[in-house]
Amino acid sequence: MSGAFPILSAAEAAELIDHGMLVAMSGFTPAGAAKAVPRAIADRAKILHEAGQPFRIRVLTGASTGTSLDDALAEADAVSWRAPYQSSRPLRQRINKGEVEFVDMHLSHLPQSVLFGHFGDIDVAVIEATDVTEDGKVYLSTSVGASPTFLLKAKKVIIELNRGQSKEIGKMADVVVPDTPPHRKSLALDHPLQRIGTRYAQVDPSKIVGIVENDQPDELGGFTASDELSSAIAGYVVQFLTEELAAGRIPKEFLPMQSGVGNVANAVTEGIGASTEIPDFYMYTEVLQPAPFRLLKSGRMKGASSCGLTLLPEQIQEISEDIDFYRDRIVLRPQEISNNPAIVRQLGIIAMNTALEVDFYGHVNSTHVCGQNIMNGIGGSGDFARNAYLSIFVCPSTAKDGKISTIVPMCSHVDHNEHSVEVIVTEQGLADLRGVAPAQRARLIIDNCAHPMYRDMLHRYIEKCKPGHIYHDLERCFDMHRNLMRHGDMLAGETSSVA
Amino acid sequence: MSGAFPILSAAEAAELIDHGMLVAMSGFTPAGAAKAVPRAIADRAKILHEAGQPFRIRVLTGASTGTSLDDALAEADAVSWRAPYQSSRPLRQRINKGEVEFVDMHLSHLPQSVLFGHFGDIDVAVIEATDVTEDGKVYLSTSVGASPTFLLKAKKVIIELNRGQSKEIGKMADVVVPDTPPHRKSLALDHPLQRIGTRYAQVDPSKIVGIVENDQPDELGGFTASDELSSAIAGYVVQFLTEELAAGRIPKEFLPMQSGVGNVANAVTEGIGASTEIPDFYMYTEVLQPAPFRLLKSGRMKGASSCGLTLLPEQIQEISEDIDFYRDRIVLRPQEISNNPAIVRQLGIIAMNTALEVDFYGHVNSTHVCGQNIMNGIGGSGDFARNAYLSIFVCPSTAKDGKISTIVPMCSHVDHNEHSVEVIVTEQGLADLRGVAPAQRARLIIDNCAHPMYRDMLHRYIEKCKPGHIYHDLERCFDMHRNLMRHGDMLAGETSSVA
Ligand SMILES: CC(C)(COP(=O)(O)OP(=O)(O)OC[C@H]1O[C@@H](n2cnc3c(N)ncnc32)[C@H](O)[C@@H]1OP(=O)(O)O)[C@@H](O)C(=O)NCCC(=O)NCCS
Ligand SMILES: CC(C)(COP(=O)(O)OP(=O)(O)OC[C@H]1O[C@@H](n2cnc3c(N)ncnc32)[C@H](O)[C@@H]1OP(=O)(O)O)[C@@H](O)C(=O)NCCC(=O)NCCS
Repeated sequence: MSGAFPILSAAEAAELIDHGMLVAMSGFTPAGAAKAVPRAIADRAKILHEAGQPFRIRVLTGASTGTSLDDALAEADAVSWRAPYQSSRPLRQRINKGEVEFVDMHLSHLPQSVLFGHFGDIDVAVIEATDVTEDGKVYLSTSVGASPTFLLKAKKVIIELNRGQSKEIGKMADVVVPDTPPHRKSLALDHPLQRIGTRYAQVDPSKIVGIVENDQPDELGGFTASDELSSAIAGYVVQFLTEELAAGRIPKEFLPMQSGVGNVANAVTEGIGASTEIPDFYMYTEVLQPAPFRLLKSGRMKGASSCGLTLLPEQIQEISEDIDFYRDRIVLRPQEISNNPAIVRQLGIIAMNTALEVDFYGHVNSTHVCGQNIMNGIGGSGDFARNAYLSIFVCPSTAKDGKISTIVPMCSHVDHNEHSVEVIVTEQGLADLRGVAPAQRARLIIDNCAHPMYRDMLHRYIEKCKPGHIYHDLERCFDMHRNLMRHGDMLAGETSSVA
Repeated sequence: MSGAFPILSAAEAAELIDHGMLVAMSGFTPAGAAKAVPRAIADRAKILHEAGQPFRIRVLTGASTGTSLDDALAEADAVSWRAPYQSSRPLRQRINKGEVEFVDMHLSHLPQSVLFGHFGDIDVAVIEATDVTEDGKVYLSTSVGASPTFLLKAKKVIIELNRGQSKEIGKMADVVVPDTPPHRKSLALDHPLQRIGTRYAQVDPSKIVGIVENDQPDELGGFTASDELSSAIAGYVVQFLTEELAAGRIPKEFLPMQSGVGNVANAVTEGIGASTEIPDFYMYTEVLQPAPFRLLKSGRMKGASSCGLTLLPEQIQEISEDIDFYRDRIVLRPQEISNNPAIVRQLGIIAMNTALEVDFYGHVNSTHVCGQNIMNGIGGSGDFARNAYLSIFVCPSTAKDGKISTIVPMCSHVDHNEHSVEVIVTEQGLADLRGVAPAQRARLIIDNCAHPMYRDMLHRYIEKCKPGHIYHDLERCFDMHRNLMRHGDMLAGETSSVA
């Protein structure tokens, strides 16, 4: 980087952000999230609040972020509106108390909504980068997310230059910003690792108001080792994929995999890696997590296209040190491309995402506990599930020590509907819903996936329903949720009305 | 056509169909649906049933069909399983009584599921065509639907040669059957009218077991003229699109339109046609209905890509007579292409579909009355709504003389979720949900879209909810549906629990 742009302290940068502004920041998971500036904005908010002045901003990012961004801003009560995804405990609490407006979006939709101006103008973008040139080439860091579009649309830009991240990682990006319709060109991307763009994002250099230097690593949360439950789920998934291969419904060379966030998804990828019957494979996914990275290292995975490197610091280090190996095996893409419906459909992705609850007919809730309180958001799960070759949802059959059955008569919030969910897997077993009508789906899901202690209750619900194409009783469909809310246990309370 | 294939009577063809077979027939709406053979199969079923023999088949089509297919087969109780869509009264009744298994699918998903063998082998395909050559080029008639894939995968093929349809209409098709993944090529379709395939579908001629001659026109149901309600809805849609144009959120040249099935959709297209502020436009849609056809004729619409010609007989006649005009203005595509997520996203379609009910948070039910009884199916609405540039849903604010509010606290079935629904329009007004969080969505939808006689009831529901990201009370969310089921009126009964 040349000395073309003013160097600012984080606090000086934060001074450029005023109450009411729409601020777009880099970050797709903690990978590549802005850190120094949002923390300084949080500090500024606290000072202003103490002085009795209002200070709340509207915040856009690629997806979730690290503690310096969402946690810090939420704890300072500095956020009035947030999109498109989050996974921060303090922020979630404020959203669920109605203190922060949250718009839960398909991640592939975000960049085009920004480009089209659906949220109004972006006042300032704060983007982590490994390098920026005088003519406005921005080399991003461990994630691409929506940063290329933010750089294009923001009125002012602050670059967080992360000296701790290798410049080689900054060159793993493949940046394309599709045009506005109707003259958007088709995406000629025929292989998970194909490059169709540039290694940098472009910004009009006159918009860069300052550079903030930083060397903090990504703030990655812990991953727990796979336990018995998730290993059992992984076992059923591997068995199913092996049978599909044998039946010729998955081609011999296999298909690119997508895997959702969280521990169960991590365990299933590990299980697939350990299988001797599934051939070496590619991932075309949204987030590259630690377990799949290990498969990349071992050669079991042939390559990964992703939107960010959600990896442990030592794994990031490893990439920098062995860049000649990883350069041709990892491509980082904007979320509009990593999650693009066109590519997901075309490549024939096997999508594997995690559910909070699943109902008898194959609807999936991935976002709202008891229909009300948000966990994280839909993220990219809809982009992948809807357009996948095979759409698999996994979850343990119970939560909270068995007090919650994740298999319920009716989902209290529907993020993926019966038309887009093909296979359900719990530690109890697997239900293949392809070509199966509702009444038969219910039996399959209860018998194969529900926990034995809930099966009778679930069957009795159906038996007492008036027939229809779908068997439901709108007066009893949420009795289990009601038991949970009143008595802390789905099995407790007036079970008579379910039973 | 040469005399290469045996000519069969419809009854002889029906003899080739046995109990338990999976039979795939042409038809996307009544347009291009098989007619003579399904009617003969229904007759065969009745004779066998009278003789005490079982006869029920599994039936696949492109989408809905005409009376000779779904009505006739249903009335003969000759269907055990049906996918992916229907709109037949006798069939619907049997589905809702649990006598026929029905699998309700996204229409763009059907051909790939067939190609991948997810429903097992297709025993026989019955396909209406205008011509077939010795080497197996099949020129389809007024719809393409899933016929190219059926021809590819069926073990045996019966062609219904429709002498009443002009051979010129048979040449309006643009047939592409995408390969199986992971080597499916990207679709290079950059303009609604671009041709990327052949004018015919290919079949292995050795699979053709016979030709059945026929000259029956498509069995199109009536369209009612637009009434006051649908004109009011159209007015709000036109006003909104005009404002979006003025704000630059829709490009000056406008965007291609998709319009759903039914009378309201027809009226809105008419309204757009009549607007002096909306420029001449293209349609990239699933079904070309009578009203848009009139706009094509007048030049107001510059061209239409569609999966079928759901037109009045005199309109079909007009195309044949003025083929030089229409040849370059209409392209008929397989449903995998007309509804393809890649193309819908890329072209930036404005999607307009009809809802049965809409809830406070923007979820839409388009299929199941009171969560149980199917109306038609999701059809292509999900393919378009999810991937559109703008996803609009329209419906009158009440149904059944005001006894039903189409605006409800929670949808009793979710086909399109809050993440994929951007604008709601009733004759009361319009709610623009882009960037709006749940609590604010509820207010917008109630105040702008609900019928005034329901507004107090709807507001009171919210006021009595425990706060959360989404305001809901799982014990009361279906009270209005309960009133309807018990008393035939959502306003009647123990409204106290809603109120
Ligand atoms: C659904 C999702 C929350 C599951 O996350 P996970 O880490 O795999 O799952 P866990 O089993 O640890 O569950 C997370 C929490 O939800 C709770 N939970 C799970 N099912 C529940 C249910 N039906 N009702 C209430 N709580 C439930 C768990 O008890 C756990 O609570 P805790 O954090 O207090 O321990 C997560 O995958 C997600 O946010 N998905 C949506 C976004 C997405 O799919 N992105 C990927 C696209 S690439
Ligand atoms: C939703 C859908 C049924 C509406 O059809 P329509 O002809 O525009 O609407 P109508 O207002 O005439 O309603 C149809 C019937 O449903 C009834 N209805 C409407 N809303 C209702 C509700 N909330 N509860 C119960 N019944 C309702 C109407 O009273 C009418 O009944 P009738 O046939 O006995 O008179 C239809 O658009 C559909 O099937 N959509 C799904 C598929 C789709 O969108 N395809 C297009 C993709 S290209």
